[in-house]
Amino acid sequence: MPTEAELDRLYVVLVRARNPNNIGAAARAMHDFGLRHLRVVNDFPVPLESARSAIDASDVLADSAAFPTLADAVADCTLVVGTTAVGERDLQHELLVLSDAAPRICAELRRGNDCSSGAGRVALLFGSEKTGLSNDELSHCNWLLTVPMRQYAEVRHPSMNLGQAVAVCLYELVRDRPRPQSSARNPEGPSANGPQAAADCAPPNPATAADLERLTELLSEVLEKTGYIRRHPANGGPAQLRRLLRRMALDAENTSVWMGILRQILWKVGGA
Amino acid sequence: MPTEAELDRLYVVLVRARNPNNIGAAARAMHDFGLRHLRVVNDFPVPLESARSAIDASDVLADSAAFPTLADAVADCTLVVGTTAVGERDLQHELLVLSDAAPRICAELRRGNDCSSGAGRVALLFGSEKTGLSNDELSHCNWLLTVPMRQYAEVRHPSMNLGQAVAVCLYELVRDRPRPQSSARNPEGPSANGPQAAADCAPPNPATAADLERLTELLSEVLEKTGYIRRHPANGGPAQLRRLLRRMALDAENTSVWMGILRQILWKVGGA
Repeated sequence: MPTEAELDRLYVVLVRARNPNNIGAAARAMHDFGLRHLRVVNDFPVPLESARSAIDASDVLADSAAFPTLADAVADCTLVVGTTAVGERDLQHELLVLSDAAPRICAELRRGNDCSSGAGRVALLFGSEKTGLSNDELSHCNWLLTVPMRQYAEVRHPSMNLGQAVAVCLYELVRDRPRPQSSARNPEGPSANGPQAAADCAPPNPATAADLERLTELLSEVLEKTGYIRRHPANGGPAQLRRLLRRMALDAENTSVWMGILRQILWKVGGA
Repeated sequence: MPTEAELDRLYVVLVRARNPNNIGAAARAMHDFGLRHLRVVNDFPVPLESARSAIDASDVLADSAAFPTLADAVADCTLVVGTTAVGERDLQHELLVLSDAAPRICAELRRGNDCSSGAGRVALLFGSEKTGLSNDELSHCNWLLTVPMRQYAEVRHPSMNLGQAVAVCLYELVRDRPRPQSSARNPEGPSANGPQAAADCAPPNPATAADLERLTELLSEVLEKTGYIRRHPANGGPAQLRRLLRRMALDAENTSVWMGILRQILWKVGGA
């Protein structure tokens, strides 16, 4: 179970939530499970007045922050996880079920305990009630998680109520899980090569989302200037490039090296 | 993860829920996780019309059943589990955290696969939004579960939103859990003597709640007639007697034996 300091580095980000009751419900679930930082991304002022009536959610809502773009909302985070109901969308990200995703998220939160690493700030994204996260919004994510639900033949887009989805995800994150040492003592057990191992694959000093977004913009400019995008329009959109870079699990150092490389190229092709 | 047939023996029972939106939210969570049987206990007609507007919940609401009393709503069940936020109430029941409670519930549901046992029907009770389950309602339960939440010094009665509590409980019940054999192979692990072992303590052929209620009434009559209640009023209320009997984990045979004994006593003391 994450410590209070670790949970303090977990940000719930509601993207284009339209119903103030749902924002209030999300805030209440955060309060219930000990989270503080709610971020809201909307291109219009959010009517938080009615949300503020949600029982026990006032402290979370009072501290909530509004952002005009998703990139701004996740800029300081070192891991950005999107939630999705999957449906029939053709996902181009790694997708984990919630119970496998939670240990990975907790591992990243733990990394923040070492102040020198600059890591450990996690954004957990929830999309709008109607459409979920768009492909462009998903492209800001390092990977995705989904809550396993019953599949119905007649329902084409299964989805959860927003407040319930937030509650279930946070429950799983703060839920007691088997101690790591017991799975180590039981190497044939199902968890030995599971999510704990995957968590160890993340870079020791990951880049922030803001670094990656700057890198994406630079790369986009380079590809534009070099004529790549004209020849391969399907590969060169901002969403495609974001995914490309976020799949690489770049650390802060590599990111700055790549920035230097791209700036150099850009200067060479006459765009700087 | 419970099979479809097993989930079909799990009943969500909402006791005195007042807000139709919450009933709708509970029904939607049931739909999401593959449950069908919603039971509603209210002493007034429930305004289900507005609940029926809940997305994806219409099939569950259409099949829902209303009961005038809790005893009626759980009469055919062999395990009755109450949910509680604990707070400062002085609970007189065994209390499990949700992650320990779920394997026990699943074990009871599995027992129903053996048609000869008469077991395997579980009621999961949620109380009203304001007060939760009353002490009298709790007395119908075999044991209680709670969702672990952050405790705040300033909040005296922590509680979850009803729809979110239902979603979290059902998520935990259908969630993949470690295989029992892996904990057997790892006898020093934390789960070796955990909930799985506790589940095995339940009787092979448990009494239904209706049987136990009849037994409670008989016992109450006996204690009344024998003067026990006059001398020990604190022990002899209906709620105390229900708890007393439900703690014994009586099976169907023992229950019928006890009925015979109590009827005999009653005849002897002149009340039959």
